[in-house]
Formats: sequence, C-alpha cells, structure tokens
Amino acid sequence: MASVPSVSYSITVRLEVPAGGKAVSQLTGAVEGAGGIVTALDLTPAGHDRLRIDVTCATRDTDHAQEIVDALEQLDGVTIHKVSDRTFLMHLGGKIEMQSKVPLRNRDELSMAYTPGVARVSLAIARNPEDVRRLTIKRNSVAVITDGSAVLGLGNIGPAAALPVMEGKAALFKRFAGIDAWPICLDTQDTDEIVRTVQILAPAFGGINLEDISAPRCFEVERRLRDLLDIPVFHDDQHGTAIVVLSALTNALRVVGKDIADVRIAMAGAGAAGNAVLRLLLHAGAKHVVVCDMYGAVHSGRDDLDDSLRWVAENTNPEGYDGDLRGAVRGADVFIGVSAPGILTGDDIATMNDGAVVFALANPDPEVDPAAAREHAAVVATGRSDYPNQINNVLAFPGVFRGLLDAQSRTVTLEMLHAAARALADVVTDGELGPNYIVPSVFHPDVAHAVAAAVQKAAEAAR
Amino acid sequence: MASVPSVSYSITVRLEVPAGGKAVSQLTGAVEGAGGIVTALDLTPAGHDRLRIDVTCATRDTDHAQEIVDALEQLDGVTIHKVSDRTFLMHLGGKIEMQSKVPLRNRDELSMAYTPGVARVSLAIARNPEDVRRLTIKRNSVAVITDGSAVLGLGNIGPAAALPVMEGKAALFKRFAGIDAWPICLDTQDTDEIVRTVQILAPAFGGINLEDISAPRCFEVERRLRDLLDIPVFHDDQHGTAIVVLSALTNALRVVGKDIADVRIAMAGAGAAGNAVLRLLLHAGAKHVVVCDMYGAVHSGRDDLDDSLRWVAENTNPEGYDGDLRGAVRGADVFIGVSAPGILTGDDIATMNDGAVVFALANPDPEVDPAAAREHAAVVATGRSDYPNQINNVLAFPGVFRGLLDAQSRTVTLEMLHAAARALADVVTDGELGPNYIVPSVFHPDVAHAVAAAVQKAAEAAR
Repeated sequence: MASVPSVSYSITVRLEVPAGGKAVSQLTGAVEGAGGIVTALDLTPAGHDRLRIDVTCATRDTDHAQEIVDALEQLDGVTIHKVSDRTFLMHLGGKIEMQSKVPLRNRDELSMAYTPGVARVSLAIARNPEDVRRLTIKRNSVAVITDGSAVLGLGNIGPAAALPVMEGKAALFKRFAGIDAWPICLDTQDTDEIVRTVQILAPAFGGINLEDISAPRCFEVERRLRDLLDIPVFHDDQHGTAIVVLSALTNALRVVGKDIADVRIAMAGAGAAGNAVLRLLLHAGAKHVVVCDMYGAVHSGRDDLDDSLRWVAENTNPEGYDGDLRGAVRGADVFIGVSAPGILTGDDIATMNDGAVVFALANPDPEVDPAAAREHAAVVATGRSDYPNQINNVLAFPGVFRGLLDAQSRTVTLEMLHAAARALADVVTDGELGPNYIVPSVFHPDVAHAVAAAVQKAAEAAR
Repeated sequence: MASVPSVSYSITVRLEVPAGGKAVSQLTGAVEGAGGIVTALDLTPAGHDRLRIDVTCATRDTDHAQEIVDALEQLDGVTIHKVSDRTFLMHLGGKIEMQSKVPLRNRDELSMAYTPGVARVSLAIARNPEDVRRLTIKRNSVAVITDGSAVLGLGNIGPAAALPVMEGKAALFKRFAGIDAWPICLDTQDTDEIVRTVQILAPAFGGINLEDISAPRCFEVERRLRDLLDIPVFHDDQHGTAIVVLSALTNALRVVGKDIADVRIAMAGAGAAGNAVLRLLLHAGAKHVVVCDMYGAVHSGRDDLDDSLRWVAENTNPEGYDGDLRGAVRGADVFIGVSAPGILTGDDIATMNDGAVVFALANPDPEVDPAAAREHAAVVATGRSDYPNQINNVLAFPGVFRGLLDAQSRTVTLEMLHAAARALADVVTDGELGPNYIVPSVFHPDVAHAVAAAVQKAAEAAR
C-alpha cells in the first residue's frame, strides 16, 4: 500500500549540469514524471560552466528511488555523482547521545561531580535509600527494553537490529516529555532470563518501558516484573495502544452519541495489543465485546485456548457467539482490529449498525481499506499517518511516564491508564470534535502535559 | 587528613544583615576565623534597610561547616535563612541526561527517525549485522557497570548508592573523550549473574567499563566477559590505574635516569589495582618486583595463596624474599603502594636506594605521608589532587575507550594498555619533565587524544 511517495524513502541525488543548458529546469519534471516529489533543490556553482545540484525527493520505495535516479541520468548533460538516502544519513552514528548536566571545567567542579565530593552523595543514599530519587538520574530515567522478538512489523530481527527503533523511542521520550530514556537490547529471548536481567539492572532507572517483545512472552515478563520491582513497568505495545484506542473510542462515541456500556464491540486480534485494549475497554465499562482470532470468535467452548485466551473467553462474549469475524461485525457498533491486513471489506462494514465506528489498526496495511470503510462507517481510524485519526502510541507513552515519574510511582494500574485515556480524549474540545478529528495530532502542545497530569494524580491517589 | 578546606565540602549560607551596619565587612572575617575560605559573596537588597547575602565558602567537612554557620550566626544583626551544600545541589536530579541528536520538529522528521522510516534501518542491520556499528549508538557508547561492591573507598554500599559515582564517570567520558556512556547499576553481587547480565545487555554498547567491583570477583567477571563478548571489557579500577602508574613510573625513571628492567620494585597491595599494575609492569619489562600484602611478601613458599596470589608468586620475587614490606622497601628503587594508609614512615623511605621513586596511592590517605617521603625520595606521587603528581584514572580511561571505539576493537590487550601508558608519558616533554611533573594535568588538552591515537593504532595492529 506504499502507493504515495514518502519522506521516509527520501533520497538526495548530487549531480552536475551545464550552467547554461535547460537541464536545471528539466530536473523537477524528470522526478515528477517518474512519480517522485521534489522537496528541495540546492545549487552550488562548480567551476565556470557547471552547476552542482543536490536534488532531494520523496520516493515510494527503494526500487522507485532507483527509477528516479535513472530518469535523472537520462537528461541531457546531467552527471550523477552520488545518491544519499536521507533516512540512513539521519541514522549514521546513532540518534541519541549522553550529555552532562553539570560543568566540568576545572578542578573544583571535578571535585564536586566526581571524587572526592561524590562520596558524600553516595553515603547519603546508602544511609537513606529513598534519596536515590532525589540525587540521581533515577528521578527522570526510563529503560527502553526489548529482546528484539517483535520489532515493528518486522518480526524477530534480534536485539542489534532493534536498536534503531529503541533509539527513536528514547528520542521521542525526550522530545515529548523531557524524559531521559536509554535503550537496552537484550541478547536473550528466554522469559526467565529477561525477567531476571531487567530486575538486576533496575536500580538506576525510575521506570521500565518494555518494547516490541512478542506475545505471549510479554504478558509473563510484565506480570512478573511488576511483582518484583518497585518502579512502574509498562509494555508500550500493549498499554500505549490501549490508552490511545480507548481515548479515540471515547471521542468516536461522542461523535455518534453512543455510550461505551451499550455498544456492541467486535475485535479482531488477541495478541499483545488486543489483550491490553480489551482489558482497558472492560475497565472503562464496555459490556458487549466479542474477540476474534484467526480461528474465529473466542468463546468458552473452544478447546484450543491458552491462559490468555481463556481469560478472554471468561470475560467477553457472554452470549457464546461461536462464528467468524464477519458474523461478529454484523450489527456491531464498533470494530477494533489489531490483527492482520485486509481481513474485512467495505461490504462487511456495511453490515454494521448505524453510526458504525471502525478502528483498523494493523500496520502498515489496515484490516479494511479505510476509504472503503468510510463509505459505510461514521468514524474510521487507522495506525497510518496518511489518513485522519491516526492511533499513535506517541500520544500516550511520554505523558504516562512523565506522570509516573513525577508521582515517583512504584506501580502502574488500569486506573492510571484509564485516567490517561480520559485526559487524552479531553484534549479534543467539543468544538474541534468531528468524524475526522477524534485524536489530537502527536504535535499538539497540550497532549503530554494533560496525560502526565492525569496519570500523576491517579498515581498519587493510589498511594 | 582532610585538614585543608575543600570545595567538595563547599556550602552556601543565605543570610540577612542590616544594610547600614558592619556585618557585611565582618562576614569574611568570621568565616576565616573559623578556618573556612570564602569563595563568593552574592548581595541582593531585601527591603530598605536589609541586605540578603549568599556566602559561599569551602570547609573541611560537615562538622566544620556547622562551626562556620555558628560563627556567622553570632555576628551582630545576622539572620541565617538557609544553608545549602553545593555538592548536593549539583547532584539534585542527577548529573547526566539523554539528548536526541536528530530533530523531531514535524511529521517528516518523525517518519525518518521513528516509524515507518526506521524499519528500513533495522532491516539493513538484520541483513548485515556489522552495520550496527555504523547506524546506531553502538559506535560511540560504553556501559559503565558496577555491582556497588567496592565504591571509591566506601566499600560495599550497593548499586543505588553507587549511582552518583557512575553518573560522574559517564560525565567524564563525555567531557574528556566525547563518549556516550550510561550507568548500569546491578542489583546482584553473584559472579555468574553479573557475567550473564552484562552479556545479555551488551548488544547496544560498543564497550564495557566495569567499575568499583571488589576483588577477587572482578578478575573472574572480567576474564569471562572478555571470552564471551565481541566488544572490549575494561575494569577501570585495575587497568586505568595500571596505565597511569606505568606512565608515571616511566617518567619518574626518566627523572632519575634508571631503566625499568634494572630497578628493584617493592609493591604494597595485591588487590584489583595491585594485580593489574603488576601485570602491566611485567609486560613493560620490569624484572625485579616483590609484592607484599598484609601478611608480608608474596612468595611460592606461602600456603595461603589463592589463584591470584599464586600467579603473583610465580611471576615475581625470583629470590624468594619472605620478609615484610619494610624489608622489601629497603634498598629498593621504587615503591608502589595500592593498599592502606600509613603503613610506612619517612624513615622507611630513607632506607631505599638513591633516587628513590615513591608512589603512595591509597585514597584518601596515602601509605606514607608524602611530605615525609619527599625528604628522602627523588620523586613522590599520590592519588590526591592537593599534591603534585596525582595518579588519576581520568588520564587514561577516556582516551583508552576513544581509541578502542574508533578502532571498533573487539578486545583490549596488555599491548594496548602499554601503548596508552607510553602515549600518556610522552605528553610530558623533556623540557617540562621534573620531580614534580611526571604526569600531565587531567585538563591538559592533549592527553585524551594522544592516548586514543596510541590505543587505536595498537588495536588496529592487533587485528
């Protein structure tokens, strides 16, 4: 579905043309003729009769980039020097760094920040362990931890290949909530080892953000770590998604004038995200939910249920519906997909109740074509940035951890997640609310602060 | 021995005095009368007839600070508002932070640094694992890892209380060598668990700096990790010290005109630092070394030797000397102490050979009073910043890791440490060299670069 040129496939082509010729004016045409979009032209004279030009353009994918370079090369008088990939250029040497907050210009400053002065600070913490949250980075630091087993949509690519994602996550933590996060990529996928390792490295961190760990391992890892640690543990793929989904659903129901306790909800997907979304929906008052996995509706009569699915069967589908997803969607008020691409069609959406809400969140390709869904549903949301109503975890995790750290919380509860979702929904005012605006932009300046304040309040109330 | 006021015990006293009176002029006198040193007076008017003054002064220790506050309080018309400890103020909220190196101002930048663009970078690393050193922070990152078992001279204060020291270390890595280090404080002191944990968290780091782990556990931890990992592992308490000692000894021998292969060396201390110093001295050509621990000289005839001491016995003391430290020092050319305070006197130093070199490195109180030692020895060095010739690891570890990272080295060898020591010694020119200048200042601008270049060259030669 990458049918539109995207800046994430942006290239910069350095080339030379004769200064007097028509090549300059032809460059943009050549790129556009090949289906690309020119986003910048940087010119420098190169000698008397030549111009050096950096042509930056968005492309669809790697093959498309090559087609554009070929088109440029065929222009009269053009010599291609170098093709740079902007995304790769941005990643050279990594995306984050460590900075000292204290000056180390002279001996006096060294004596306070390091030996001998630091010894007094260490002794103070040894005598009063709670001081570690006052006198060290523990106050503001989060470990972003993965085992590389379920990275984005790429699957089990391992800890090293996961690192660019974790660096990006750390950068987002700082950008949106001023949090100092550091990536930890684990060279093990054994549940016991993951749990023990995180427990061992926890002392210097104020929170643990688990990331891209595959289900069902992620459930046990999180549950055991929450029991073991005195800092909050949050698996973003689960709870970040759940918060934004509940928030978006709250506002979608404002748009169509329905109540969460009354609506019939059909869900596709019972993995990490689906499980967390379901639990938060139930906590928020949803009563009529049917969850489908690839074998159809989850119900107590199935004999293939693991612990996680058995919980789903016991807490949903009170009528014991045992058909497929298509049947579950029929007459439903809400469809929430956190599963696989293209499992529904516009015709399926047409069978839903009036004022239907469709969240098709599979990435990059949704459960149902959003354009087709919009012909029949009142509100449609996806995980994609090129449609309205993007369900994006960036709306949740920075504010959630900001609130947890500010409250010096030792836990994270469903009530705190619910508070985050309510605060996020409330960022969209009645005047702004509409079918195409149920979630604020990730760059909305109020989001992180609103979420943080709500989570901090809930965490302080939970003491 | 903290007999001199130190900035690491600096306080700021906020007080008010009558604007017209004599109190202002008496403040400095009161501080100095109590034995402190005023380093700053900041005045602000407080109403018509009052002045608010922040008096910053260096004190000897916490009790002394209180005496100074008491002296100020007794001045006529002075009201004390608040006493702040500058070292603690500097530590509030921690000393380091994470920063993004890439801009995240808009959707395009988000799409390149995070999803969807980052997926291509992750895939590139999955396909070609070596790219992790090009496209991520692994290129420039070091984990500063402790178990909190031997922190400074404070002993086993645990991982949380060790954190301020590790943050300081990380800040020094950046200040002196541009390295991105992050502190990892381990909540275990079990050798197997330390080894396994470090192995599991290694993928995102380009080097491991072990710190303040007690002997003999540190030997096994380091040896096993060096076997397991494809990044260099360096226990700074051992090898950082060894490099600076060898470097200082090289220059001390330049001063007295002796050769390392000929001199008789008496060492006190066979712990982590002593062991590493010894190995590097032997590698550099020392032939006549006697090592003493608290039971006297280490020799093959002793029946209380563990593995580490047995190695010492087999590789030193060829004449089988079995007396005490005092006897070992008699007639020796060099004494190197990495042990305990006050175990030798000036009279003992007087029994050494002409042109004696004395390194009394126990911290904060040396093996022999340096003033007394200097009456009999040609060159004296300590670990203290208030005497000439400070043996300070900061001279070594930043440059060592800079060189290792730049060479993308997978190991660290004795030859690399030796190269670092030579380069550090050579920073002191013949014109500068003298009994009071055998090591450069930690702020000497050439140190880290010189050490890094030498280590990089040695690491590249070792491929």
